[in-house]
Amino acid sequence: MLPDSTEQDVLLRTTVDGFAGGRIEMVQPADGRHRSGLEAALLAASIAPEFDGTVVDLGAGSGAVGLTIAARCPEANAILVDRDGSALRCALAALARPHNADFADRVQIVEIDVNCPETDRIAAGLERCSADAVVANPPFRDLRTNCASPNADRSAAHVLDAPGLEPWIRCSASVLKGGGQLIIIVAADLFVSVVNCLGRRFGRVDAMPVHPRADAPAGRVLVRAIKNSRAGMTLFPPLVLHDRTGSAYLPGVEAMLRGRADLAEVHAAWVSRC
Amino acid sequence: MLPDSTEQDVLLRTTVDGFAGGRIEMVQPADGRHRSGLEAALLAASIAPEFDGTVVDLGAGSGAVGLTIAARCPEANAILVDRDGSALRCALAALARPHNADFADRVQIVEIDVNCPETDRIAAGLERCSADAVVANPPFRDLRTNCASPNADRSAAHVLDAPGLEPWIRCSASVLKGGGQLIIIVAADLFVSVVNCLGRRFGRVDAMPVHPRADAPAGRVLVRAIKNSRAGMTLFPPLVLHDRTGSAYLPGVEAMLRGRADLAEVHAAWVSRC
Repeated sequence: MLPDSTEQDVLLRTTVDGFAGGRIEMVQPADGRHRSGLEAALLAASIAPEFDGTVVDLGAGSGAVGLTIAARCPEANAILVDRDGSALRCALAALARPHNADFADRVQIVEIDVNCPETDRIAAGLERCSADAVVANPPFRDLRTNCASPNADRSAAHVLDAPGLEPWIRCSASVLKGGGQLIIIVAADLFVSVVNCLGRRFGRVDAMPVHPRADAPAGRVLVRAIKNSRAGMTLFPPLVLHDRTGSAYLPGVEAMLRGRADLAEVHAAWVSRC
Repeated sequence: MLPDSTEQDVLLRTTVDGFAGGRIEMVQPADGRHRSGLEAALLAASIAPEFDGTVVDLGAGSGAVGLTIAARCPEANAILVDRDGSALRCALAALARPHNADFADRVQIVEIDVNCPETDRIAAGLERCSADAVVANPPFRDLRTNCASPNADRSAAHVLDAPGLEPWIRCSASVLKGGGQLIIIVAADLFVSVVNCLGRRFGRVDAMPVHPRADAPAGRVLVRAIKNSRAGMTLFPPLVLHDRTGSAYLPGVEAMLRGRADLAEVHAAWVSRC
């Protein structure tokens, strides 16, 4: 470290964008690297408007998921968690905007890394057994680090080696109340890794494959799991995003993206848990 | 053992039934315990009519899958494998029927238990690296034996503890040529166990959930995996069996059940491998 180093604030170029059909205003880095989209909208739509507990948005980035839930669920409290301080400063800037004033006082921001020890997470405000729901949209690339798997079977090609998942699941299990729900969206090829990683900490696993078109393989899987449940897994009917031409979103999906519908209204089998 | 025990043949009451729309005649135990149906028809339909290699029907029972493939694929040879001698005697009786004469000489029967050592399997006629395809419809109850899992994570409720699967996968890996395909149908809650069990021996895993209705969870998953492949997993669009009333089969499924269509003709994404 340089002995005479000085602090210097570097201004982050941002844009202000409507999200969820304009229900919230987001402040996002202008470079577009982490701009929010479909995954964030699906996660937010998986929480029912009647949800009146605390939801932790793990890997919140600029806050798309947590802010949308706070806007859609008038009784909910949201905690945005990320290790990326500049993304969280965007979320903070969004909370200061008049457009978001109706729900801004129900949103907290916590800057920590999911990899940090539980004592650090608690000190930062993530009490054990305090949340009713966790929503997570982990950055897929970070999950595929090249650590060797402790289990030879699992390093097979079709069970993607994703040791980066474990801290996300561990942190979720810590912060959730018993019976609380974790909802996580991942690339389809990480699906089996997620289910394995949930281990004994979660049960009643609902898996909903997300297909770009009805005749194409799944690109994502939305997984919901209940802390401490011993129930088994259910493989839900898929959510299809586009018609066969692959252009516009199907009407139900468009309604979710616009913040006008929940997943439970759009998907025949999904039932929201409050 | 009684020193003066005598052998006694007990006659098995059987019925003769058309299967696959009457393309084959099956001889089945009249008690109906193991009568063939949807799973057998799907497995048979997953093999293309152009298939011209050797297919092993593992857990063949009275032979529905293997006999249907032999009837539908004029260049295929089928080996029916089961540990249940009385079921195999039914298959043998079916092969003797004039209705099945066109393909009977392309069908072999091997009575062994998938749990037996490889040397015994080879002695019985299942040479290593000799088959182009294995089709398997393992009895679900046998897979859920109460052995303790060596891996604590996998004994979680949502990853069904299915140690009974391993001998089926091990036997398939032994008898298949490199690049050969294993096609197995299991209860949906065993899906993750199957994928874990495939391990490093198989890759390019194609998983097709089978839903009774479009709005109901999957009841079965058809899994195809390629020996020695290092490719990842693809989660296919589902196959839906019934319309929303849940009564008759949808036309494409009915055509497969009647032996008039392959899975590749009925399902938008499934491509048969010869």
